[in-house]
Amino acid sequence: MDADGLFITIEGIDGSGKSTQIARLAEALCAQGRTVITTREPGGSPGAEEIRRLLVEGPPERWSAETEILLFTAARRDHMERTIAPALARGDIVLCDRFIDSTRAYQGHGPLRTMVDTLHELAIGREPDLTLLLDIDPENAFERAGQRAGGEDRFEQHGLSFQRTLRATFKDLAKAHPERIKIIDAAGDPSEVAARLLNVVTEKLGV
Amino acid sequence: MDADGLFITIEGIDGSGKSTQIARLAEALCAQGRTVITTREPGGSPGAEEIRRLLVEGPPERWSAETEILLFTAARRDHMERTIAPALARGDIVLCDRFIDSTRAYQGHGPLRTMVDTLHELAIGREPDLTLLLDIDPENAFERAGQRAGGEDRFEQHGLSFQRTLRATFKDLAKAHPERIKIIDAAGDPSEVAARLLNVVTEKLGV
Repeated sequence: MDADGLFITIEGIDGSGKSTQIARLAEALCAQGRTVITTREPGGSPGAEEIRRLLVEGPPERWSAETEILLFTAARRDHMERTIAPALARGDIVLCDRFIDSTRAYQGHGPLRTMVDTLHELAIGREPDLTLLLDIDPENAFERAGQRAGGEDRFEQHGLSFQRTLRATFKDLAKAHPERIKIIDAAGDPSEVAARLLNVVTEKLGV
Repeated sequence: MDADGLFITIEGIDGSGKSTQIARLAEALCAQGRTVITTREPGGSPGAEEIRRLLVEGPPERWSAETEILLFTAARRDHMERTIAPALARGDIVLCDRFIDSTRAYQGHGPLRTMVDTLHELAIGREPDLTLLLDIDPENAFERAGQRAGGEDRFEQHGLSFQRTLRATFKDLAKAHPERIKIIDAAGDPSEVAARLLNVVTEKLGV
């Protein structure tokens, strides 16, 4: 744990249950008397939410991959300065729904991975203290997402084979950064998954 | 001159007469039978104009210097892809009101200069073929700008001493890149200044 707060990111494919698990984790940590803020990307600060609108609205071909990566990084810089860094300086626990690993997995294909990493080093300059990777079979996640309004749409946009590639990329990232990224089995009862997350965080907090 | 068009940027402090001179230069080149497009930064393509709105609206402290540089670079990438590169590929002459040298002069102070240059190399990867630096004494430019609506406001925003620093930075850039950046005396009658610009461009075109 940093002397000044703990920066935790939650990553995973669409439908892996990030939102539910972040809410449960925040509740459990608050119940322990910790101060927790939850935030998300892209967005998480007023300026970054404005950049998010440019990213999520309009047709998919609106931006090239390179422009998209620049906009994600600009939003992340603002989010870091205005929301994450001040919370860490106060000693809070920050739970962030998606961060740099999502950019690496979704946008960092082939030669673009170097651009993503170089920009991150240049403009952000830090990794999370802990990353919880919610790992689930894409077909399992698809069924879960299908139960939500809009869930299927998001899957249709990306496609099942893209989700499989994403899952593999996330797992490769975890293999490359075993100290930081912890793979959590996200299948099964949400309460059991929540207990798995809390175990990992509690260990990191050194309680 | 590139085999595929000529990319000319026009730079200078506020009130140096860029808009007037770009219009005159475009007219003179069109009269020679050349195909010319005029564009400007930040902006110059639909996406970049949207990013421009984020940059120019709202209070000055809305973005940090670093986020601002990322947004300028994102806008420039889109502008390059959607407007400048296609025009050059058609063999056109592109006249662009401000480009990377303005970012270097306005945003690239101290350690931020490295960030500006690294981002440019990573995301844009090319310099203009020719840069016309309209050089004028800031007090002279101030009088000229004062005659326009809104002119004084822009000067009040930046201040005369900032314009002096800008002028010096632009001249340093010209000294560092003498082949690319040509200093044009922008004082005196606009027709005389226009003749100076056309001379330099004609020489570059090898006519």
